[in-house]
Amino acid sequence: MTAIAYLGPSGTYAEAAALKYQALYPHLHPESKTSPILCPYPSIPKAIQAAALKEVDLAIVPVENSIQGGVTMTLDSLWQWHQLQIQQALVLPIEHALITQAKTLADIKVVYSHPQALAQCQHWLEEFVPQAQLVPTDSTTEGLEVVSTDSTLAAIASQRAAEMYKLPTLACPINDHPDNCTRFWVLGLTPPTTKGSHTSLAFSAQRNLPGALVKPLSVFADLGINLSRIESRPTKRSLGDYVFFIDIEASVEQPFVQEALQDLVPLTETLRIFGSYSIAD
Amino acid sequence: MTAIAYLGPSGTYAEAAALKYQALYPHLHPESKTSPILCPYPSIPKAIQAAALKEVDLAIVPVENSIQGGVTMTLDSLWQWHQLQIQQALVLPIEHALITQAKTLADIKVVYSHPQALAQCQHWLEEFVPQAQLVPTDSTTEGLEVVSTDSTLAAIASQRAAEMYKLPTLACPINDHPDNCTRFWVLGLTPPTTKGSHTSLAFSAQRNLPGALVKPLSVFADLGINLSRIESRPTKRSLGDYVFFIDIEASVEQPFVQEALQDLVPLTETLRIFGSYSIAD
Repeated sequence: MTAIAYLGPSGTYAEAAALKYQALYPHLHPESKTSPILCPYPSIPKAIQAAALKEVDLAIVPVENSIQGGVTMTLDSLWQWHQLQIQQALVLPIEHALITQAKTLADIKVVYSHPQALAQCQHWLEEFVPQAQLVPTDSTTEGLEVVSTDSTLAAIASQRAAEMYKLPTLACPINDHPDNCTRFWVLGLTPPTTKGSHTSLAFSAQRNLPGALVKPLSVFADLGINLSRIESRPTKRSLGDYVFFIDIEASVEQPFVQEALQDLVPLTETLRIFGSYSIAD
Repeated sequence: MTAIAYLGPSGTYAEAAALKYQALYPHLHPESKTSPILCPYPSIPKAIQAAALKEVDLAIVPVENSIQGGVTMTLDSLWQWHQLQIQQALVLPIEHALITQAKTLADIKVVYSHPQALAQCQHWLEEFVPQAQLVPTDSTTEGLEVVSTDSTLAAIASQRAAEMYKLPTLACPINDHPDNCTRFWVLGLTPPTTKGSHTSLAFSAQRNLPGALVKPLSVFADLGINLSRIESRPTKRSLGDYVFFIDIEASVEQPFVQEALQDLVPLTETLRIFGSYSIAD
């Protein structure tokens, strides 16, 4: 039986992504006879560590949101547990609901949610509930437990979470940008995958040389390979010293990608390849 | 009188940076006859907006931490209020203290701090106070008020904050990485500055072309200009559409930088130059 770690508790967007992957699993793995089981973990680094240490087979974690940008904990943990390979990418649309027993917006005194969800609704909150105090929580569902006890409280979570907690939704969607979605990665210790539309890698650059970043990037451009994303993270050694995470629109099995990866070795300090994978929308 | 916005309340690292800049001000501006006054603001975007709308003369805001990486709110707000220019950069060492009335670490049940400070001490906390619940707050000093009421509570903040609140420090430093520092920018509406060791700019790339990012970066490499930093942020239009923030190690007044900036125009969609400035350590 395949076990999949995700950031719990029940009702989070991460669980919605895990459920979506669970539903896709039989199509992606027709040889498998059982449906995977989902295992909630208290944080993203712990879910990733569980997959790296074989407590579970896979971890599904958010990588990037279209409004908030990269999920730095996921990138930092993957750099640390670099034996993990990306099995699949998944894009989930995010729609935030205001969940409360209040009858009108004017009755709401406090709004609870995860800091990212509060940030994604900040203009809506300023316009429609300017009187409310905004209180950050560890997950989008944490606030729902208190909402049931007091009708002056509200939480921001998904419509699905509201239904799970049997609580009413007063407004939905309330996210400031309608085109809000989050990309997830499914990580596991299986051998490097070479098929798929995208490949992810990361490298630390050779320091303080003009072109230390440009030369590695030029390798891809010279071969006509499109970069779909670049994100820098500190190496934590000193200010100004970075790891670059790069997604390219090509598979490792293509000969010109093999050539590019060979050319990268002398231009980088440490180079890590996280495999090729497809994206499920 | 020069008024400077910063992220309050009193006792935060942002205030320490503002005080450092206040002390430097007479040396940087010998023509000025009065010392600048400091004005606390409730968030980074509000401090930046105050400078852009001339409520204050300057805003001092964190840009990047050596462990946690870029401060996305600062980059997103600067892209929005792009008439602002960087006047000065400032690097502040960060040393976190565990502030509590508890006599031993084993007595501590809850640790309060800003999520970034909790993250920067996570290994120390797991090792020395594994029993404690970690509670995020809006600023590093917010937890200090409750710490004075109950000896089972602790807060993570600076030694300076402990002294301001007349509270004892049980352990210091407790940050996981000794070389922890934060870079700040001083922003203002003064005419573009052209002198200094560094120049910052940002651009949105022409979409989905191989080399859309490499070509602008090559402009600098070809002229031997070192990039000291690159950070991508979502444009918030759709997933996969980015703004790139770049710091170069050269001044706008140098002719080859002028040449590079001219060459960039046809290679980018929107290009914004935030001026040249020096870095105070």
